[in-house]
Amino acid sequence: MRAFFSDMRTIEWIEELNQVRMIDQRLLPARLEYLVVENSDQMARAIRDMAIRGAPALGVAGAFGVALEAVGNQHLRGADLRETLHFAAQKLIDARPTAVNLSWGVNQILEIVDGSQLPREDLIQQLVVTARNLAEQDVETNLKMAEHGASLINDGDTIIHHCNTGSLAVVDWGTALGAIRFAHEQGKRIHVLVDETRPRLQGSRLTAWECEQYGIPYEIITDNMAGYFLRSGKVQKVFFGADRVAANGDVVNKIGTYMLSLAAHANRVPVVCVFPLSTLDLSVASGDQIPIELRDPGEVLNLSQNGEPVAPAAARALNPAFDITPHHLISAWVTETGVIKPPFSENHPR
Amino acid sequence: MRAFFSDMRTIEWIEELNQVRMIDQRLLPARLEYLVVENSDQMARAIRDMAIRGAPALGVAGAFGVALEAVGNQHLRGADLRETLHFAAQKLIDARPTAVNLSWGVNQILEIVDGSQLPREDLIQQLVVTARNLAEQDVETNLKMAEHGASLINDGDTIIHHCNTGSLAVVDWGTALGAIRFAHEQGKRIHVLVDETRPRLQGSRLTAWECEQYGIPYEIITDNMAGYFLRSGKVQKVFFGADRVAANGDVVNKIGTYMLSLAAHANRVPVVCVFPLSTLDLSVASGDQIPIELRDPGEVLNLSQNGEPVAPAAARALNPAFDITPHHLISAWVTETGVIKPPFSENHPR
Repeated sequence: MRAFFSDMRTIEWIEELNQVRMIDQRLLPARLEYLVVENSDQMARAIRDMAIRGAPALGVAGAFGVALEAVGNQHLRGADLRETLHFAAQKLIDARPTAVNLSWGVNQILEIVDGSQLPREDLIQQLVVTARNLAEQDVETNLKMAEHGASLINDGDTIIHHCNTGSLAVVDWGTALGAIRFAHEQGKRIHVLVDETRPRLQGSRLTAWECEQYGIPYEIITDNMAGYFLRSGKVQKVFFGADRVAANGDVVNKIGTYMLSLAAHANRVPVVCVFPLSTLDLSVASGDQIPIELRDPGEVLNLSQNGEPVAPAAARALNPAFDITPHHLISAWVTETGVIKPPFSENHPR
Repeated sequence: MRAFFSDMRTIEWIEELNQVRMIDQRLLPARLEYLVVENSDQMARAIRDMAIRGAPALGVAGAFGVALEAVGNQHLRGADLRETLHFAAQKLIDARPTAVNLSWGVNQILEIVDGSQLPREDLIQQLVVTARNLAEQDVETNLKMAEHGASLINDGDTIIHHCNTGSLAVVDWGTALGAIRFAHEQGKRIHVLVDETRPRLQGSRLTAWECEQYGIPYEIITDNMAGYFLRSGKVQKVFFGADRVAANGDVVNKIGTYMLSLAAHANRVPVVCVFPLSTLDLSVASGDQIPIELRDPGEVLNLSQNGEPVAPAAARALNPAFDITPHHLISAWVTETGVIKPPFSENHPR
């Protein structure tokens, strides 16, 4: 059932070495290799360069990053240690501004740093234990989300899926792709149209690779083909995850989610967004208040086709990494507690 | 004003040699090279492989293809020549099923083949003259379209443009990009967001290259980013061409046009479709009756990024080359006679 993850997770704390080991997602599908990270600087770089990505996985990565920094600074006195960890925390959060899980994970650890009266060694031990527990909880949370999400999938469904929301986006299982995998393992016959997800191609690189691991039938499509298939009447659902969900239900997710949702809505195909409650940010009333990360234009321009560059040498590009899907385009918000409904401040206060 | 096309058009009949010379668009932007075609087989291959593409250019290419075949079969008797040319015509039309201009151009020549009482040598001469006149007319038609289209563009406009509709899509000037270029040369300050246009990347490869030739400010975006920019309020128009327009105003155009139009419509941004009347097909009542070409999945999968393939080795893909944009999403249909309004069978019978 968990073929390729049987002895390795997307991200994991190695106890004996006090290191974090993660699948280097930049190298898939060509090579499955692991990246070892030993301090918060290396973790921030791995996050920024997208060796690890996916909102839930970033939450765990952020927590691990602070814990690594604590372990590496055992010699510091209490106040200095706190200052160092706050500095590291900010650096980690700044590595990617949009996904709220990153700051959520970092803050889970910082709260202990600030609130604990434990002696230094015990404090550091507790930070590591807490971070590792977050990873364990992530697996449990994901399984619940997957089960709730799968209940919305029928035998025979063709589903368009955007970006990567599988095991590689979390510690194990995944959000939207976790639900699809759960339905597949329940014996439902599912067919997935995998949005390639320009510019970083998480769909063709990662989601297609995961579908092959699980034996889920799929085909890759370019993002701009989704409308053609939605209009054909052959697609029953659209599934994706979220990087941040506002109190009113607006979803900030990988660029392209908005256009996909518009096309689904125009063709009366249900749009299902799957995310853990840690992705919900009640401090923002609507999606328009969420900062959108602008990444290096090189990510748009660095393709080659038949060995030739695909753009003029002097070409310029823009690269917003996320977009905002207004809540009226979303049919269901699925979390580990089941389907929830906005306004979330009233219905799901924390 | 016509820097790079001053002594060469996208496609041209070389009188002394009875050959057709065209820019090999598969090699741009890396190299500007010409492909020489001497018979209808070579022309059909050039069309199928997209060495030449763009609906109006395909019309001229189709006419040239039949004319080349006539020149090459001067020795045949009248009936045999007609049969040979009909066979060649069908092969050319079948090379790409969606753009109606291709069959339109081929049929312009076939009508003379079937209707003329001229002696064989004069007939062949007339076919060549007619095909060359189509190319000349294309330039005139394009200039008129460009002028009409430019009248819809205001100083300061930011325009999202899909696929390539510039000089490379026609003999000279272009349809949608022709209008943008015309406005630019009128002194209007225009900014173009160039949809890269997966899977063949005509936007980043060809439109960006043309914008550089003309000095039009632009940035490349991935197709799935258009919604983000449309929602931002910073885009005033969406412009594209057409491969076939149905009697009710439905537009069949490069894959991605439908999702772009949905996003523009949702954000009240006008959608302008620019095409010559030869693209109008009054024989089809609506877009759903137009065949959509399904191309090789390899076009979706053959990218590489940082020297690595972007999909698993065994990955499957789908590749519809066009989609249908329902007429209610289109704000203006611009032709060489000005803005026209559906239903076209009533308003613009031919």
